[in-house]
Amino acid sequence: MITRMSSLFLRTLREDPADAEVPSHRLLVRAGYVRRVAPGGYSWLPLGLRVLRKIEQVVREEMNAIGAQEIQFPALLPREPYEITGRWTEYGDGLFRLKDRKGADYLLGPTHEELFALTVKGEFSSYKDYPVTLYQIQTKYRDEARPRAGILRGREFVMKDSYSFDLDDEGLERSYQAHRAAYTSLFDRLGLEYVVVAATSGAMGGSASEEFLAVAETGEDTYVRSTESGYAANVEAVITPAPPAREIEGLPAAQVHPTPNTPTIESLVAFFNAAGLGREFTAADTLKNVLLKVRQPGTKEWELLGIGLPGDREVDMKRLEAALEPAEVELLEEADFRKNPFLVKGYIGPKALKDNGVRYLVDPRVVTGTAWLTGADRDGHHVLDLVAGRDFTPDGTIEAAEVREGDASPDGQGTLVAARGIEIGHIFQLGRKYTDAFEVDALGPDSKPIRITMGSYGVGVSRLVAVLAEQNHDKDGLVWPREVSPYDVHVVVAGKDESIAAGAEKLVAELDAAGVEVLFDDRKATPGVKFADAELVGVPTILVVGRGLANGVVEVKDRRTGDREEIPVESVVGHLVKLVRS
Amino acid sequence: MITRMSSLFLRTLREDPADAEVPSHRLLVRAGYVRRVAPGGYSWLPLGLRVLRKIEQVVREEMNAIGAQEIQFPALLPREPYEITGRWTEYGDGLFRLKDRKGADYLLGPTHEELFALTVKGEFSSYKDYPVTLYQIQTKYRDEARPRAGILRGREFVMKDSYSFDLDDEGLERSYQAHRAAYTSLFDRLGLEYVVVAATSGAMGGSASEEFLAVAETGEDTYVRSTESGYAANVEAVITPAPPAREIEGLPAAQVHPTPNTPTIESLVAFFNAAGLGREFTAADTLKNVLLKVRQPGTKEWELLGIGLPGDREVDMKRLEAALEPAEVELLEEADFRKNPFLVKGYIGPKALKDNGVRYLVDPRVVTGTAWLTGADRDGHHVLDLVAGRDFTPDGTIEAAEVREGDASPDGQGTLVAARGIEIGHIFQLGRKYTDAFEVDALGPDSKPIRITMGSYGVGVSRLVAVLAEQNHDKDGLVWPREVSPYDVHVVVAGKDESIAAGAEKLVAELDAAGVEVLFDDRKATPGVKFADAELVGVPTILVVGRGLANGVVEVKDRRTGDREEIPVESVVGHLVKLVRS
Repeated sequence: MITRMSSLFLRTLREDPADAEVPSHRLLVRAGYVRRVAPGGYSWLPLGLRVLRKIEQVVREEMNAIGAQEIQFPALLPREPYEITGRWTEYGDGLFRLKDRKGADYLLGPTHEELFALTVKGEFSSYKDYPVTLYQIQTKYRDEARPRAGILRGREFVMKDSYSFDLDDEGLERSYQAHRAAYTSLFDRLGLEYVVVAATSGAMGGSASEEFLAVAETGEDTYVRSTESGYAANVEAVITPAPPAREIEGLPAAQVHPTPNTPTIESLVAFFNAAGLGREFTAADTLKNVLLKVRQPGTKEWELLGIGLPGDREVDMKRLEAALEPAEVELLEEADFRKNPFLVKGYIGPKALKDNGVRYLVDPRVVTGTAWLTGADRDGHHVLDLVAGRDFTPDGTIEAAEVREGDASPDGQGTLVAARGIEIGHIFQLGRKYTDAFEVDALGPDSKPIRITMGSYGVGVSRLVAVLAEQNHDKDGLVWPREVSPYDVHVVVAGKDESIAAGAEKLVAELDAAGVEVLFDDRKATPGVKFADAELVGVPTILVVGRGLANGVVEVKDRRTGDREEIPVESVVGHLVKLVRS
Repeated sequence: MITRMSSLFLRTLREDPADAEVPSHRLLVRAGYVRRVAPGGYSWLPLGLRVLRKIEQVVREEMNAIGAQEIQFPALLPREPYEITGRWTEYGDGLFRLKDRKGADYLLGPTHEELFALTVKGEFSSYKDYPVTLYQIQTKYRDEARPRAGILRGREFVMKDSYSFDLDDEGLERSYQAHRAAYTSLFDRLGLEYVVVAATSGAMGGSASEEFLAVAETGEDTYVRSTESGYAANVEAVITPAPPAREIEGLPAAQVHPTPNTPTIESLVAFFNAAGLGREFTAADTLKNVLLKVRQPGTKEWELLGIGLPGDREVDMKRLEAALEPAEVELLEEADFRKNPFLVKGYIGPKALKDNGVRYLVDPRVVTGTAWLTGADRDGHHVLDLVAGRDFTPDGTIEAAEVREGDASPDGQGTLVAARGIEIGHIFQLGRKYTDAFEVDALGPDSKPIRITMGSYGVGVSRLVAVLAEQNHDKDGLVWPREVSPYDVHVVVAGKDESIAAGAEKLVAELDAAGVEVLFDDRKATPGVKFADAELVGVPTILVVGRGLANGVVEVKDRRTGDREEIPVESVVGHLVKLVRS
């Protein structure tokens, strides 16, 4: 197939789009791959659609290779199944909801767990039918609070979502590992640099959920990895290693001290170090109590929540929100303090929370036997040597404190370092949440029902276009990996000579006949304009047909390395076919 | 690629689904191609998705062949462009509308004229850039009042919509004819029986709009064709041939008659025939005045409208609505009559309408000089010999009367006969409606702007799956045309012998290696169950590997004709490859 740039619906731009923050966004717009239609909504122009379709095809092949079967659901879905699982409410503002002409509630599908579970229940009934894995490559919708970076985080996007259905946990583990292998093969084929990180705290089992993150400075996801072991995790999934509990016996009793003008950790530590107690204090000796309000999905009432953590750490809101999901979390406002006068700002301690029925969760470092300097619930007063397990008993622990480079790795080997990435895949052992909701059972060999267990697996297909651009570009433009490049070869006619144009036409026809996909720059533009566009568009191989043709040679340029090679015109088609197929 | 029925996500049904009215719906559900998810929302199971994709590919090839370029827009679109063209309002209840988390208005795209016009305006600026034709194969949404017949009329469906952009009317005509040829080629390739009918009254030019209708008794569209000429038209598009105006001079004066108890046409005609006036009356001599109310899009006020038509014809609401589009139309309720006491039910005449400022449109047969028996606006009174152009002057004509078989063909040749069809394609010379709205201009050679003219062209891609099923089935199941069949060959293992299974495996592997797409029934079921499923699923060629294998033969069955042929096992792969490629 030959595409002629003289008629291609493409206008490259010299200027970066004003709203572009990241290289992929800038270049995909400038090179005419995508155009913005609405916040988080993009159209795919001819070049972009070709890359998207090629990625879809690679995804399809890898899914088919593990025996997954492709089906497709509507994007417009009725409320009922999502009501049953609670996601209609839990999704909050992230879900696009609408009503039809009869007033019935609908949503635009963010993912399709409910529908897949119901469909499998509808078709399959015997244990002999299982296992089965189904997938779709489909347009998804999420009303992101902050759509950004072009197609990197859109509100309408293409996703491959698959779901495995197994009779038992061993089967689920096999399905999960098959997906893990398929994703590895997929991302390797695409030439991506990526890491696999633990994505949940592992409460459901070590490998219950992992994310594939493309390494990218512009990534929204921060992950950490151990300096010594293979440990890697999404920051939300890092489990703070708790020290062992200590002996309470013999610890000094708690004492309340007047501490005027010490509303901050810094001023408090300075005050006690100057107090002549013969002890050295640091921020890590203080227990900071942060007050929040939490609202469970589907309810209107906010509930107070106290979080206690060592004073040298800040609360990481993303970790906190992940820990409390699906509840909403907000910081307290002045009005909340006025309504709850027992909360003495700057001097809040565990006692007032307990006395007033406020739930109190602490950082895992706050183990039994640790002694703390914390608020005494009176303006200008703190309490010293308040011992966990003796003077206060929290309602539980929570992963809310920031993770820092240099922290001990949760697996006990080495310390953590941080990096940024973009989520490109997610695999998740769902278990029976959805099959319980819809009672998806298979009739077992003994005629007893077996509750099916599910896995869910996603790849951000349209996002991959941007991720590939993010990892494959230079100052002049895009540099596509061969597997997903919109064309195999970009042929540039460089010269006004009739014979040059005729020679190029002949070569292009031969390449096309040999099955090579050609983007043919047959425009009446200067060689400079054409070369700049070829660099920007990023087809990996550029064939320049110019004045050398008179001497029987043409030039083949490698877009990535910039290497140029003169090739005799009679052997160039064979040369390119070999290059393209390699 | 080999698909094994032992693991295929497919369960055929013995029973027809309760809600299935038409054969395609019944069979596509029974054979496991689609499943209902919501009113007008269906999921595509593996077999159905394969057929859909194959049809998409044929459509794509035909569009690419006329130089159309594929792009893709979001389905979730902002309100603004549709507000500018008025379609946000005009679409009425047929549009799915929603708000995002910030309260901004969005819609799910029913068609994308606005976006294509804006995109071309954004990229192209010179007359040298034109013409250009763009298309997408995309999911569309319409909130149908009565989704029906499975995927035949859904609320979420796949459509190919293309748009041509030309500098002048001649260019538009060329683009239109190119699409007409592409659609003809497309529907011919799919082996469809179809007609091309005029789709608008032709006010914008003879070929401004045509529909491609698949011939089907179950179709929702009624069309008529001439018994003698090639004339064919959607009923909404039929133009009533108006007789020539007559001489008014010498016609008797209008006379009001007391006509007690004659509220119906029938009773009125009987009354006058019994009145001894020496004239014979039929319903065609009476002028029936039907009162309606009409509301323009975006307004809240209903306006009265009187329609006058010969008493032997009923109003055809679909024709009436098409004539008044985009206004809404409703019949009057009792309350409306009470509010307008000048409307004397059963005795309404043109005079009261005129006196009270009610717009009055008549059937084209009501020409100047025709004399009518009609209401006198008094209970129990009619007026005889009320002459159009003398005693009353309508505000215009309207195509509201039913079209009947036997009516004269609008082209003056022969009479009309009616048939039913399903719309599968629509081509439309839009002109400058959208380019005017968005000021889409090209800079001409003289540096003056040229307003671009547009065409819009649609194919119902997912609907074609149902239409093909509608035209290709028998009592036992579906019978796919080879071009879109989910598989090339359906291989059935008939017999429990190990050697039969092994022989079938070998043949299937050879077919697969030869590039033949095989659906392989390797299940442990009886031959009867397997044969019934093969008939139901409808792959055009069935290979039966059974006891004959011991004698070196297998059976090839033609699904459509039922013909069976014994073929030597060593030559069957070659035989099938030839058959499949033919």
